[in-house]
Amino acid sequence: MNAVSIPQTMRRLVITAPGEIEWAEASVPTPKPEEVLVKVLGVSSCPHWDLHILGGEPMFPGQDLHYPYLPGQPGHEAVGEVAAVGSAVASLRVGQRVVAWRDTGEARPGFYAQFNTFRAVDLLPVSAERPHGQWASVELGMCVEVSFQRLAELGGVRGRRVAIAGLGPAGLVAVQLARHHGAAAVIGMDPVTERRELALRLGATHVETGEAASWPADRNDERAADVAIDCTGLAPVVEFLLRRTRQAVALFGVVRDPIRYDGALMWGPGVTLVGYGDHNRTAAETAIAAVEAGTLDLSALITTTLPLRDYVRGVGLLRRKEAIKVLFDPWA
Amino acid sequence: MNAVSIPQTMRRLVITAPGEIEWAEASVPTPKPEEVLVKVLGVSSCPHWDLHILGGEPMFPGQDLHYPYLPGQPGHEAVGEVAAVGSAVASLRVGQRVVAWRDTGEARPGFYAQFNTFRAVDLLPVSAERPHGQWASVELGMCVEVSFQRLAELGGVRGRRVAIAGLGPAGLVAVQLARHHGAAAVIGMDPVTERRELALRLGATHVETGEAASWPADRNDERAADVAIDCTGLAPVVEFLLRRTRQAVALFGVVRDPIRYDGALMWGPGVTLVGYGDHNRTAAETAIAAVEAGTLDLSALITTTLPLRDYVRGVGLLRRKEAIKVLFDPWA
Repeated sequence: MNAVSIPQTMRRLVITAPGEIEWAEASVPTPKPEEVLVKVLGVSSCPHWDLHILGGEPMFPGQDLHYPYLPGQPGHEAVGEVAAVGSAVASLRVGQRVVAWRDTGEARPGFYAQFNTFRAVDLLPVSAERPHGQWASVELGMCVEVSFQRLAELGGVRGRRVAIAGLGPAGLVAVQLARHHGAAAVIGMDPVTERRELALRLGATHVETGEAASWPADRNDERAADVAIDCTGLAPVVEFLLRRTRQAVALFGVVRDPIRYDGALMWGPGVTLVGYGDHNRTAAETAIAAVEAGTLDLSALITTTLPLRDYVRGVGLLRRKEAIKVLFDPWA
Repeated sequence: MNAVSIPQTMRRLVITAPGEIEWAEASVPTPKPEEVLVKVLGVSSCPHWDLHILGGEPMFPGQDLHYPYLPGQPGHEAVGEVAAVGSAVASLRVGQRVVAWRDTGEARPGFYAQFNTFRAVDLLPVSAERPHGQWASVELGMCVEVSFQRLAELGGVRGRRVAIAGLGPAGLVAVQLARHHGAAAVIGMDPVTERRELALRLGATHVETGEAASWPADRNDERAADVAIDCTGLAPVVEFLLRRTRQAVALFGVVRDPIRYDGALMWGPGVTLVGYGDHNRTAAETAIAAVEAGTLDLSALITTTLPLRDYVRGVGLLRRKEAIKVLFDPWA
């Protein structure tokens, strides 16, 4: 691996107001002792974050939101190359291909930039042979894997019928991770035809539109799922799943309105409603291993590649559901 | 063990109308091949059932209720002596002390009688040395143990802080089983002073009245529970527990109104709401082992002993919360 040339200045994106950005010049940052300077090769949209922050709405209810937003944020699903390492970093070398596996949530610059500094412990090395679109979204893979970890506490998905509600990026990762973990059947649920079709190509064995008429509310029916993951965050969808799932429904999508757990759900045996877990490195390593094993195709979620300076156009595609994920190139 | 003398006729209780009973003569039943004739030595009230059936209300919403009710029902927490065995029964012998560990829910006569027939597989032998009040409620112990089995799927209660809401008979069993399974701390919650005091005597390390002011709604507070079991079936109580429990709230009490699971509960990691499981013999064997080990004192729940013919008086004590459980003697 060769040294990576580091210029004095770079371009980075700043959301200056709802719907508005600047693609501005800035100094290339210097890593602190525990940090790494990453040359960003590709960064993928995280539709939930991008739509909220560019749209002027907080991601979590009640959260404060100020503009201009932090430079480079909310970019956090990134693949890059180690350009320099801080004095205390022994785990990574200059020239290595790395992914940011964790969105630390700290108030600091993000990856919508040509360079960004990041703590070495929040990066994982990956093979340089695969295209950027295959690696940029490892953080999402980690996030979704956390729900499988929670289901693993209850016996896991191997050999079982798994329902996934919401076939956006998270749901399409969940469909693939369910197969990776040995699910016998995967039911994908989404009202959008193209997403159902993509889910079938990515390993779903069956798809549903989410209409109650086509899927009876009977936890003892053979069409019932054993476990389910909700990737919509919509209370009526979670309640739909609770009535059709034998053992456990795990929450992945950000729930805004309260979920009703009806008394009848507690019997037969009762269904378990599972909260979300903590982000962790093991989950990221599992996602990377699934990519290496060929059971998780993250590039299938990237339906458009755009220069990063065309960010507003990219988020427009997401808003109109004309793209599932956009891979942004900071160098184009 | 000697033969048990079997008369031609016996007395048994029939609830003839809401609030009314007959203590009537009837033939002693003959066991079918897989059944045992049990001479009933003691039968304990199951307040939820007794209050509903004598009160004219179905136990489960929507259930039909007809009078006269089935003879001997809803008596199901019984200890007795094997008086005769059916031709296919090899597991039990005449003279053996047995408990009915399962309420089969079938439409057949119950244990509020001097004799009753029961399937041999639904009986378990127990030591004849302990008083009837120690054994009559094994069925309740089994029921409550099922919730501990569900929590065991999530790592169990050993070394952890366990909250028990509702210190009626089930809650007082749950307090003891939590200690039996190695809980580090047991928080008992009930508005009734006497019940809280009894919980402390039975192993609770701390009690709460259930007032929000004295127990802040903070899942990260050191006073929060790790796991909880709701023995009230009241949605506001379950919601109170969900906001104060780190990992999982298990439902034991019959839930009538829907429980609200607020979005904020899914983070941190999120709390899991666990339905009820299936009754099983292993749970009954665990309850019996806990009695033998001295960690489960079921006789502590029996605050009154009455002749079975005084059933209406006994249920009155339960209704006015002047008794926790009543042990009825069919021979007094």
